[in-house]
Amino acid sequence: MTTRFDKLAASLSTSGLDAVILNPGPTLTYLTGLHFHLMERPVVLFFAADKPPALVLPELEMQKVTGLPITPFPYGENPAEWDAAFRGAIRSLDLDGKKIGIEPRQLRLLEYQYVKSAAPKADFPDASSALASLRLRKDADEVQKMRRAVQIAQSALESTIPLIKIGMAEKEIAAELVTQLFKHGSDPELPFSPIVSGGPNSANPHATPTERKLERGDLLVIDWGATFDGYISDLTRTFAVGEVDAECATIHRVVQEANAAGRAAAKPGVPCAEVDKAARAVIEAAGYGGFFTHRTGHGIGMEPHEDPYMRGDNMQILDVGMAFTVEPGIYLPNRNGVRIEDNVVISKDGADVLSTMTREMRVVG
Amino acid sequence: MTTRFDKLAASLSTSGLDAVILNPGPTLTYLTGLHFHLMERPVVLFFAADKPPALVLPELEMQKVTGLPITPFPYGENPAEWDAAFRGAIRSLDLDGKKIGIEPRQLRLLEYQYVKSAAPKADFPDASSALASLRLRKDADEVQKMRRAVQIAQSALESTIPLIKIGMAEKEIAAELVTQLFKHGSDPELPFSPIVSGGPNSANPHATPTERKLERGDLLVIDWGATFDGYISDLTRTFAVGEVDAECATIHRVVQEANAAGRAAAKPGVPCAEVDKAARAVIEAAGYGGFFTHRTGHGIGMEPHEDPYMRGDNMQILDVGMAFTVEPGIYLPNRNGVRIEDNVVISKDGADVLSTMTREMRVVG
Repeated sequence: MTTRFDKLAASLSTSGLDAVILNPGPTLTYLTGLHFHLMERPVVLFFAADKPPALVLPELEMQKVTGLPITPFPYGENPAEWDAAFRGAIRSLDLDGKKIGIEPRQLRLLEYQYVKSAAPKADFPDASSALASLRLRKDADEVQKMRRAVQIAQSALESTIPLIKIGMAEKEIAAELVTQLFKHGSDPELPFSPIVSGGPNSANPHATPTERKLERGDLLVIDWGATFDGYISDLTRTFAVGEVDAECATIHRVVQEANAAGRAAAKPGVPCAEVDKAARAVIEAAGYGGFFTHRTGHGIGMEPHEDPYMRGDNMQILDVGMAFTVEPGIYLPNRNGVRIEDNVVISKDGADVLSTMTREMRVVG
Repeated sequence: MTTRFDKLAASLSTSGLDAVILNPGPTLTYLTGLHFHLMERPVVLFFAADKPPALVLPELEMQKVTGLPITPFPYGENPAEWDAAFRGAIRSLDLDGKKIGIEPRQLRLLEYQYVKSAAPKADFPDASSALASLRLRKDADEVQKMRRAVQIAQSALESTIPLIKIGMAEKEIAAELVTQLFKHGSDPELPFSPIVSGGPNSANPHATPTERKLERGDLLVIDWGATFDGYISDLTRTFAVGEVDAECATIHRVVQEANAAGRAAAKPGVPCAEVDKAARAVIEAAGYGGFFTHRTGHGIGMEPHEDPYMRGDNMQILDVGMAFTVEPGIYLPNRNGVRIEDNVVISKDGADVLSTMTREMRVVG
């Protein structure tokens, strides 16, 4: 914990911040190892350099922090006690009038209003990038956990594939896959509910599994992941349900090539935009550019989506340890869709591809 | 959808609000049936009476809203486009200068900052209670889903109990229970990760499963739930691992009586505080008052914790359709803990107890 506190203290100083506040979420867990749920009772960590952090939390969570280098400001079951706890924490670190960095994507109005009321003269600049940068380069231990999350996901899907039959509903396949994910060792909190979408539904990149039954000739998109010790995987493979038509085969081949091009472009020193462009160029050259409607990838780690983002406008430079998805797709509305998604970590010479399952179009049903 | 929109419009008028904004979460799903994830791409529904609601969302989610009585304001993959989408939505409903209600527990600074920038003269009062009240009284269909979520949870635990042996780690038991929850039909998103805590760990009401192995003489607390069609269950039972000492037997008996007293006190017209007091009085009379460190219960429905809260200071009056947990506990630090939790819905004459599993102390191992 102390090492990561030091890393944060250094980052505060570079960013011109006096402090940061964190509510339950991946950054809080990364720094402290503590897990809190984002619930109706507020939990906020106040971090300033050179002093032990202060933590506002419910009394009944106190056992989680016993013995840690953190000053607790507990409150009882009556919400009327929240205010005093926030005031105590702010006073202990002398934060009023200071620059207190926040994460707008994470912090709720609930916590913000109490902090602001206790520190009315403070500024609350956006500290998202300073905080994201702490977690941006994964160390060997983190990569090992992500690799394990990929292995669990892959073996869970391999156990599911033989059970997929024509006439099965998307929801049934999703339920079986979820069962297999836990059987193969995923943490109880999946990174997201699997997408299982067949035929026309596969043309919706963010589909939710429905009662639609698989038909011969469908493409079947499965986008799924596992969690291992807090780190996640996020993969997609597209299957042919029985024999599919020539267009399906073509778009699958194009996406497969785009995926390979995206992975090949990923290396240290290259901007994220290049990964997007490499994958997109393949799809555009094949005449399907208008049907690749999303970015090529997003960072992964403790969160299913985090920095860095593989977008054509993102000039952020890739560096060793950065981890992200490469997931081009082609979506033909009301017809069929294909996505092929892998998880990679930037290594010294290129990209370490954590996912090893074949990307060829396998036939199911 | 229209009925619930009407309900919200009526609630706006009573609360003196011109509009409300909702980000992904249970209220948005309750009103629209739409599921969005709370992610890095903002999604916000703007609702004002007498006009179709406006929805800021990523282009790639557009298929979710096709055909619905909602005006979409989509944006592309570059975050620079977000601002225009928010401005468009605000303009379409003419919301600047108006009273726009928010949910501080749900709304993040991310969404709030974009809305505030597009409607600089608007007020943003807390609309939590107006919005919570929409979902407060469950209709027959909602109760049926909650009952099913209870049944799934109960049958999953019944399938797990025979597998629990002395020497098993809490984590192993939790993994097996999660597998059984999905096998018995839970939706892929559990309401929370089960708590499985043995011996001294059971004295921590919010414990996370550890590698600690069950020992003869432990109490074992299992707090678990399932999700069915978006509605959740949240139950707790406490087990004896082999033979336990007299103190364990005593605190189990006291908590069982407190649970019964809490359930018996729950009926229409009674303040929430009475449910808390009824359960607490039993524990206090037995001399363990100082070891019952939390409220007696919380509302449940689409969220694991929602209104109404069974706290000694909460004078909210119970009414038909309100659903909540009754979950007294005794926690003896570093020794043992007991909690017994049921799910009830207020009916005409009292409380309909959805959970039917025995509350007697069963022996495992």
